[in-house]
Amino acid sequence: MGARMCVAVNPNLVAMEYAVRGPIPMRAAELEAAGRRTIPCNIGNPQALGQAPISFYRQVISLLEDPGRLGRERRLRATSGVAPGDLVDEYVLDVAEGMLARMRTGMGAYTESKGPRFIREAVAAYIDRRDALGPGAVPLADPEMIFLTNGASEGAMFVLEILIGGPDDGVMIPIPQYPLYSAAIRRCGGAQVDYHPDEERGWALERHVLEASYAEASARGVKVKAIVVINPGNPTGAILDLASITDVIDFAEAHGLVIIADEVYQHNVYGGEFISFARVLAERPVGLFSLHSTSKGFYGECGHRGGYLEVRNPPQIEGHELSFVDVLLKRASVSLCPNTVGQAMTYLMVAEPREGSSPWARFVAERDAVLAALFEKATMIREAFGQMRGVECFGPVGAMYLFPRLSGLPEGTTDFDYCMALLEETGLCTVNGSGFHQAPGTSHLRIAFLPPKELLAEVLPRWIAFHNRYVG
Amino acid sequence: MGARMCVAVNPNLVAMEYAVRGPIPMRAAELEAAGRRTIPCNIGNPQALGQAPISFYRQVISLLEDPGRLGRERRLRATSGVAPGDLVDEYVLDVAEGMLARMRTGMGAYTESKGPRFIREAVAAYIDRRDALGPGAVPLADPEMIFLTNGASEGAMFVLEILIGGPDDGVMIPIPQYPLYSAAIRRCGGAQVDYHPDEERGWALERHVLEASYAEASARGVKVKAIVVINPGNPTGAILDLASITDVIDFAEAHGLVIIADEVYQHNVYGGEFISFARVLAERPVGLFSLHSTSKGFYGECGHRGGYLEVRNPPQIEGHELSFVDVLLKRASVSLCPNTVGQAMTYLMVAEPREGSSPWARFVAERDAVLAALFEKATMIREAFGQMRGVECFGPVGAMYLFPRLSGLPEGTTDFDYCMALLEETGLCTVNGSGFHQAPGTSHLRIAFLPPKELLAEVLPRWIAFHNRYVG
Repeated sequence: MGARMCVAVNPNLVAMEYAVRGPIPMRAAELEAAGRRTIPCNIGNPQALGQAPISFYRQVISLLEDPGRLGRERRLRATSGVAPGDLVDEYVLDVAEGMLARMRTGMGAYTESKGPRFIREAVAAYIDRRDALGPGAVPLADPEMIFLTNGASEGAMFVLEILIGGPDDGVMIPIPQYPLYSAAIRRCGGAQVDYHPDEERGWALERHVLEASYAEASARGVKVKAIVVINPGNPTGAILDLASITDVIDFAEAHGLVIIADEVYQHNVYGGEFISFARVLAERPVGLFSLHSTSKGFYGECGHRGGYLEVRNPPQIEGHELSFVDVLLKRASVSLCPNTVGQAMTYLMVAEPREGSSPWARFVAERDAVLAALFEKATMIREAFGQMRGVECFGPVGAMYLFPRLSGLPEGTTDFDYCMALLEETGLCTVNGSGFHQAPGTSHLRIAFLPPKELLAEVLPRWIAFHNRYVG
Repeated sequence: MGARMCVAVNPNLVAMEYAVRGPIPMRAAELEAAGRRTIPCNIGNPQALGQAPISFYRQVISLLEDPGRLGRERRLRATSGVAPGDLVDEYVLDVAEGMLARMRTGMGAYTESKGPRFIREAVAAYIDRRDALGPGAVPLADPEMIFLTNGASEGAMFVLEILIGGPDDGVMIPIPQYPLYSAAIRRCGGAQVDYHPDEERGWALERHVLEASYAEASARGVKVKAIVVINPGNPTGAILDLASITDVIDFAEAHGLVIIADEVYQHNVYGGEFISFARVLAERPVGLFSLHSTSKGFYGECGHRGGYLEVRNPPQIEGHELSFVDVLLKRASVSLCPNTVGQAMTYLMVAEPREGSSPWARFVAERDAVLAALFEKATMIREAFGQMRGVECFGPVGAMYLFPRLSGLPEGTTDFDYCMALLEETGLCTVNGSGFHQAPGTSHLRIAFLPPKELLAEVLPRWIAFHNRYVG
């Protein structure tokens, strides 16, 4: 066997970091492989922790995959011996049949690169409903400005990849942030520009903070092109109020920036209200890229990698007769199309069963049970923080995460050390605050409030004991 | 309303081209929207042209999506009134149940970034079977070197994105080529280095052609890092023989290049034999990235975006204690994981129903019918070429495409003009040879041999008439 080859590669890819799947989860995987039980709270992956899927969604998808079942299920409904509980609802059959008719080429064919028009129309109608925009209001969402994607990550990466043309192209991101953004900026070779929401005011945003960050970046030669906002926040769970959103839009308009609004947790709000950027933007001519996903909310369909990107006021491309949307479409075309099941899941997410239809009551019960359980679990964990010395957690509960601040860690140790020790001792897999970047001199961790209540009831006392011993 | 924003963007994304979804298919979409019937032969998308999915695959996936059906289907099997044709086979239920047990977290959870181990093991076993490597043979495929992906495109993009660090980093691609490669190289800002298989010898490859291309690139300061080979060829349909494959490996070893082997058409071979690069590579220490997909073959499950990337001899990263596979894993992690249904489809692709099991006969019949129909349709089209003045088509039939050479186009017209006129006149949507790059001074088109036979029987005479009038 000859010598091993050695190659120089893209330094951006080597330097890129992604803590949500970094050293701590990797150590958890080793422990699991060695037979230890671990509790994966490092990532918002509810079904991995036992959250059941919404039945209606899965019944429809199951039919889409095997269309021959449509006739079969109708025959079974007419067969006397079949138990009523084993019959598939007529309404479910009709929904699946209607989707297949509009999909035309089924689940096994490439679709349009941005997804079939009927799904984009349903997304647009959902956005208008969500933002309470009636036919009189303008502007309505435009199906031609909507791109279906493999999860929200793909949409974010498309936009950043197009925007960033060189090392001086800057993108503002909140600190702390979801590391997709720092990783994607690094990968594209751009400049990360931090801004700092106010932790003690529940991570509120103020214009002067944005201006200071912009000025600092400009002074070092960075040309800021976009600002990323995550609402509800990840990792913080913070929910932006109208004043914060207005400040961001004013700021973006003043400096000619586009806004990338990561709104994937729009259905995970417990206290406070979700207000979309599109709704506040109204007719103002600021470029907006809004992301949503089937992975979060009460559905938690992470594995299906569904999502969409909605564009408003796409900028023109300097020096070309092209709009940003033309380039986006070209980028999406090279990947051919997002996966069809994720597309179908996106359709179902935005087109609920008709109120009063036969699956309706069960759908509502399942949805409400998931959301109630999430809040209950977040509350259990917050209460445990009250018994841990030096732990504080600010703001209302949103998204799927708590991001407590840790004070009094032993000299010379970091939140990374803390999280690693917590994993070794309790099996609880969290992510150190430094993995999301954080204000200098502070320590945090992020925990997804997803484990079953019984499991939390068992592990939280052990965490409290670990903590108070660790901080000494 | 204010003035429209204008931004400078990444010039690589603006310059990137992708003819398979370029102006001709866009014009076809306009014609469709205006009520004209068009025949989409611009892309290998069999189910869009009526090819039925393999029943076994879909029955299993349908159960995976709605696991509650496992118990239900068993109850139905024990219910007297249900018609035998409406029962789901016990074997199918067992396969789905076994997959869910090994998947552990179902279809709705993120999986490991490279896919669950049991699927990677099944892929490795498939590769060893395909390459006739028994337990005595070395090296066997390694499940840890296999990454499941959203289609093969994602795998190709991951590898190129890591490899290309600057404008002098070169990647050799065959001319003509599948435009994913030229687009991905452009997107990463690297240097495209063309090499020219010998059309009249059925697109065979020879070492001196590769050396000439390498020398030319080196002379202009390009550092060649990789060579892409597409086998069976796209757009050419060519099938590489052992001598050509050996030449590529010798060449790559001599210059320290890695090989990217796009082998997505490995089940689409009509005449000749598919020989994998892994098999010929054996123990030679050349880095190999081999791509496969659920989109092609007899399954044609394009919409599900399943596929895998297999790595052999991953190079070390210059200046770091990292292997190429470490960086790949990081890149895959940022996208979290490929879609689970595509993963399941990949598993089914590599793990056929057991010979003699109850679904076996139907599986074989469906598989063989698809492959036979594809060859029959390719033959019909090739015969039509015989009646078109100046049209020649070289080599055996492979992949899903024919790539005839057109001579005698009217002065001042190109193959793009020809394909556009063909679309307007007959509704047949093909792609001009220039969309794949082609030897200077030649003209071609690519047609996917996918339309139903009746449709071909109707449109081919009209094409012949159009052609002979067009070339005059």
